[in-house]
Amino acid sequence: MRKLCMLLVLFVALGAKAQNADSLFIRQLSNVIMGKGYAYDKLRELCKQIGPRLTGSRQMFAAETWGAKSFADMQGVQVRLQPCKIKRWVRGNIDNAYILVEGKRMVRLDATALGNSMGSGKAGVTAAPILINTYAELEQRKEEVKGKIVFYNADMPSVEVQPFNAYGSTGIFRRSGASRAAKYGAVGIIIRSLSTGTDNHPHTGVMSYNDSFPKIPAMAMGLQDADKVVALFKSGKPMTMTLMSDGRFLTDTTGNNVIGEIKGTEFPNEIITVGGHLDSWDLAEGAHDDGAGCVQSMQVLKALLELGYKPKRTIRAVLFCNEENGGAGGDEYFEAAKRNNEKHLFALESDAGGFTPRGFSVSTSVEDSRLKKLQSYLPLLSPFGVETIGKGGDGADISDLKALGTLTSGFRPDAQRYFDVHHARSDVFENVNKRELLLGAVNMAALIYLVDKYGL
Amino acid sequence: MRKLCMLLVLFVALGAKAQNADSLFIRQLSNVIMGKGYAYDKLRELCKQIGPRLTGSRQMFAAETWGAKSFADMQGVQVRLQPCKIKRWVRGNIDNAYILVEGKRMVRLDATALGNSMGSGKAGVTAAPILINTYAELEQRKEEVKGKIVFYNADMPSVEVQPFNAYGSTGIFRRSGASRAAKYGAVGIIIRSLSTGTDNHPHTGVMSYNDSFPKIPAMAMGLQDADKVVALFKSGKPMTMTLMSDGRFLTDTTGNNVIGEIKGTEFPNEIITVGGHLDSWDLAEGAHDDGAGCVQSMQVLKALLELGYKPKRTIRAVLFCNEENGGAGGDEYFEAAKRNNEKHLFALESDAGGFTPRGFSVSTSVEDSRLKKLQSYLPLLSPFGVETIGKGGDGADISDLKALGTLTSGFRPDAQRYFDVHHARSDVFENVNKRELLLGAVNMAALIYLVDKYGL
Repeated sequence: MRKLCMLLVLFVALGAKAQNADSLFIRQLSNVIMGKGYAYDKLRELCKQIGPRLTGSRQMFAAETWGAKSFADMQGVQVRLQPCKIKRWVRGNIDNAYILVEGKRMVRLDATALGNSMGSGKAGVTAAPILINTYAELEQRKEEVKGKIVFYNADMPSVEVQPFNAYGSTGIFRRSGASRAAKYGAVGIIIRSLSTGTDNHPHTGVMSYNDSFPKIPAMAMGLQDADKVVALFKSGKPMTMTLMSDGRFLTDTTGNNVIGEIKGTEFPNEIITVGGHLDSWDLAEGAHDDGAGCVQSMQVLKALLELGYKPKRTIRAVLFCNEENGGAGGDEYFEAAKRNNEKHLFALESDAGGFTPRGFSVSTSVEDSRLKKLQSYLPLLSPFGVETIGKGGDGADISDLKALGTLTSGFRPDAQRYFDVHHARSDVFENVNKRELLLGAVNMAALIYLVDKYGL
Repeated sequence: MRKLCMLLVLFVALGAKAQNADSLFIRQLSNVIMGKGYAYDKLRELCKQIGPRLTGSRQMFAAETWGAKSFADMQGVQVRLQPCKIKRWVRGNIDNAYILVEGKRMVRLDATALGNSMGSGKAGVTAAPILINTYAELEQRKEEVKGKIVFYNADMPSVEVQPFNAYGSTGIFRRSGASRAAKYGAVGIIIRSLSTGTDNHPHTGVMSYNDSFPKIPAMAMGLQDADKVVALFKSGKPMTMTLMSDGRFLTDTTGNNVIGEIKGTEFPNEIITVGGHLDSWDLAEGAHDDGAGCVQSMQVLKALLELGYKPKRTIRAVLFCNEENGGAGGDEYFEAAKRNNEKHLFALESDAGGFTPRGFSVSTSVEDSRLKKLQSYLPLLSPFGVETIGKGGDGADISDLKALGTLTSGFRPDAQRYFDVHHARSDVFENVNKRELLLGAVNMAALIYLVDKYGL
């Protein structure tokens, strides 16, 4: 027993020493990230010098060049572009909606087309609107829908404490509402925006059609306008709604995942990925979604290099292509990993905004033992804001890697403000807080460091 | 053993049942607070209809009336005003500073007088500036200070993860820098603002003089201007600085703590206080500091009433008077408690902004057993954002109650953005996020409910 006890004491002492060294190193990471503010400066460049980065747009390609150049500027990082076939949706030149009440009083709506939706034609689509709150109601009233514009008025419930839950449940109308309505002869749809904001900005986002039904125009309006329209319905006055949109696909082209890599010194074939997506919607600068995740991932490499850290494993920062309306970047990253028999140990995505850090989540399929190993790092992370590591999803661009045995994870900043700006014109640099963005990067860098050092 | 085991099982089952009932009740509190948004609507009124509420100002009195009316509008709340003697500082009509470089090029500084500082006189104070980074440097260079304006350039360190720590340490120059410099013959001081922001707004805040030395003007400038002035020093060009301020005290008067109270049904003599301070600086709307704490405290009563909750103990929401530049409200609340032999069980203050909830802290002198009791509630709070309860301070207006055996506590929202707007013109309603503010109130209401139900 005595020997065992001695051994245990030694073990604990070594453990404490390691924890202490790790704690010191993570403090250094924090100092270099919070002190120099690289991620924040890069986000300003991305948002202000380049701007919106819709898949296939001139700005998306400019952002790829910017990303590659940024990696190249870091001594010790190998840069490459990983091509991916992309579809090119454009909003076109017309993007508005209005209501005529009793044939004359016009109510302009702050509205915008949903991503990947087809345009209305130049004349627009004009029809009587019908207010629908749920799919159950749609089924019940399907006979009334023919020839009308369906206004889906589902509200992201303000009582839902976790906004991502509200987004998940309410988002169905944006994602599939057009074809569900077209099935019963609707000529267009418009949704109450998926927003928790107090403003009237419309929020776009991806939708898709079921090919069995006509591809009718699909738009979103701001919350205040949605309330106004509900009041008009209550007033019982006759009205028509007009949707004018111009969405269409141009010819397919090729985009790129932008990859910066530091080769591992001990296990170069074990890959750790940290990433965000470089594309954004076209309405704003994509600052939170997902410029933040990109610059945080770049910051992870930058901070490790600045401290002279030599990773055991290969660490890749990836700026993914086409997350918003296709997912071609994540698909290609996964396919290439399979083709090349790459061993992906860990993948972390930051795609929930540049807000104050709260936790990390891992795919629900992760084994408890690996989750526990990650959770054992919490005492090292909590001084920097991360208090929880649990199951609950990873990231759209890395999720497929699970099939290769990779532990996939998502950075989880505080989510209360995310859907105020998500996919809306207010997702701009000014709405990202410098300290919150940087502190997120600190926690990401710390976790990547720990996984690199101790494996999984 | 068997009996004991059975008893234990019963106990655990009862415990689980209580936890479940509490969990349900707290969910209802959350639903009513997040769903109706009372606190947010009241904050809009306070900020937009009344505005800045400097102690002794017309708006401060208007805010007292508004607060009393708001309590009176809640059925079941007794309202009273608790008078407190207050000193009335005013900024006056002149509030600016500039630099003349080589006697001609003028650099205007975005500057403002510190609270309770004395004015420069109409002609202003003009002198050569001297740049001082620390008190050690001041002592070292005390011979050079005579006849000069001391520019204290201490920066809130960006590497400090906890901004309140940075505020605590860097704040000494604002609080005591004037008399420390006047001791060596300085004719004025100006500090680098206590700010973590990326803008150039000057941040005011309270200072005090040591009566042994002349009461020289004391101001603060924005961070960008501070950097500019540092660059001017580096350039070595001869310059003079002019401070023009107009601060002074008017005759003393009487303000009020505004108290709304629900009488306890079982232990009416045991008092639970929840509060914030109603006064603010004069530069902005005092939205985070501390309109947020006031409306959250009002929201606690409102939500409990709306759910028909009959508290066992007496619950008071207090809108304190004069926290910013005197503390007369907190002093009077404590003195009255002593005079009236009141038994104060628990006091909670929200005065760290209306940001997303993270925790509660209690006075460092709290016994471990009572702290543990509070910590046992964490599983009930964490679904709403509060993850930690620990030692680390309470609130300026309730701290004295410790002397009566009260457990004093502070609500601790995320602090990363607080010092961006603290005491600056940007502390306005628009910078308070609705969901974050309300979620803070949810956690406060939950804790007050638990302390009321189970005692301490």
